[in-house]
Amino acid sequence: MIHYPNGKPYKPSEPPKTKTTSKKKDFSFSNRGKTLEEEINETNTYYLNQQIAIIHKKPVPVQIVKVEYPSRSAAVIREAYFRTPSTTDFNGVWNGYYIDFEAKETESKTSFPLKNVHQHQVNHMKEVTNQKGIAFTVVKFTTLDRYFIVPFTVLHEAWLEMENGGRKSIPLSVFESKTIEIKPGYNPRIDYITAIKNMITNDN
Amino acid sequence: MIHYPNGKPYKPSEPPKTKTTSKKKDFSFSNRGKTLEEEINETNTYYLNQQIAIIHKKPVPVQIVKVEYPSRSAAVIREAYFRTPSTTDFNGVWNGYYIDFEAKETESKTSFPLKNVHQHQVNHMKEVTNQKGIAFTVVKFTTLDRYFIVPFTVLHEAWLEMENGGRKSIPLSVFESKTIEIKPGYNPRIDYITAIKNMITNDN
Repeated sequence: MIHYPNGKPYKPSEPPKTKTTSKKKDFSFSNRGKTLEEEINETNTYYLNQQIAIIHKKPVPVQIVKVEYPSRSAAVIREAYFRTPSTTDFNGVWNGYYIDFEAKETESKTSFPLKNVHQHQVNHMKEVTNQKGIAFTVVKFTTLDRYFIVPFTVLHEAWLEMENGGRKSIPLSVFESKTIEIKPGYNPRIDYITAIKNMITNDN
Repeated sequence: MIHYPNGKPYKPSEPPKTKTTSKKKDFSFSNRGKTLEEEINETNTYYLNQQIAIIHKKPVPVQIVKVEYPSRSAAVIREAYFRTPSTTDFNGVWNGYYIDFEAKETESKTSFPLKNVHQHQVNHMKEVTNQKGIAFTVVKFTTLDRYFIVPFTVLHEAWLEMENGGRKSIPLSVFESKTIEIKPGYNPRIDYITAIKNMITNDN
C-alpha cells in the first residue's frame, strides 16, 4: 500500500478517471466535452509547432516493479503503482520565462472548491514563485464553459485563508475581479500565453 | 509493438537497466558507483531543501493499458508500455532562468559517443534555447570520474558536424577546452548551478 508522507493512503483515482470521463464526454463535432487537460495539450502542441512556447505535460509518475521482455516485441510493464507527484502537471519555457501550472476543472457554477488543489502543488508553486518563475492555475468551470488564469498569489491568499479557518472555496466573483478570464478559441484553444503576456505588461 | 515516428521499433532498455546497474554498482562507503542520475537527484534535493533552485526529474512516460483496483489496497497497473519521451530528463527554474538538461554517462576515456544522445533531445534543447532557456548536457566520464557541463551550442556544433559526415563523438580535448568541468563535492554533489552562474556571468 502506498502512503502519502502524511500517512494517508494514496488513492490514485485521477489518471484512469480522466480517461474514462474523456471517452464518455467526447463528442466529435466540437470542443465541448473535451477535458481541460486535452484542451491544454492541444494548445501546447500549437505553441510548439508555432515555436511560441515549449510547454509539456509531465508524465504520471509510476513506480515500476515488474517488466516482461517478450521476444521480438516491446517490453510490457506487468506490475507498477501510481506515485504521488511532487510538482504540478505542466511546465516549460516561454520567451525566457519559466512557466509552471496546474489545470483544474469544477462543475460548480458558483465557486471553485479548494479540495481540488493539493498541498504539494501549493508548496511547489510557492517555490517556483520564489525562484521568479511564473506559477498559476488554469480553472475551467465546466458547466459555465468559462476559463480563468489564476495567478499563484490569488490562489495562495485563498489557501492561507482556508488554513486559518476561512472558506474552503474561491467564489466566482473573485475569479471575475482578481484573475484573467480566457475566451476559448479554435487554435490556440486556451491562449494562456497571451494572458500571461498581458499580465506581465500590466505589472510593469 | 511500439515504434518511433521514424518506424524503428522502440526498445525501452533504459529505465530497467539503470535500476539494475545502480544496484550492482552501489557501494555504501562512498559516492563512487552511484549513477550520474542518482548524483543529480541528490544534488536537486539539496537545491530544493536550500531553496537554491527547483529542478525535478521528469517521470518515465508510460502508456497505461490496464489497471486493477483490489479492494482496500492501492491500484495496480497490470499492463503498460514505455513511451518515447519528447523532452530531456530534468527541468526547472533557478533565479528566473529556465533550466533544462539531460544527464549522460560514458565509460570511454577518450571521447563521448554521440549515439548516447537522441534526435528528440537535440530538437528539444534547440527549441528551449530559441525560447531563451538554458539547455545543456551533464556528461560523466565514469572511468575517469570527471564531470562536464556541455552547453547546448557545443553539443549542437558536434551534432551538425556528425550529420555532415564528421566524427561521431566529442573528444575529451573539446570537453577540456569548450565546456565547464565540475569537481564533484559532498553536498551538493554535482554543483551545476554554480557552473551555470559562472557561465552566465562570463557571457555578460
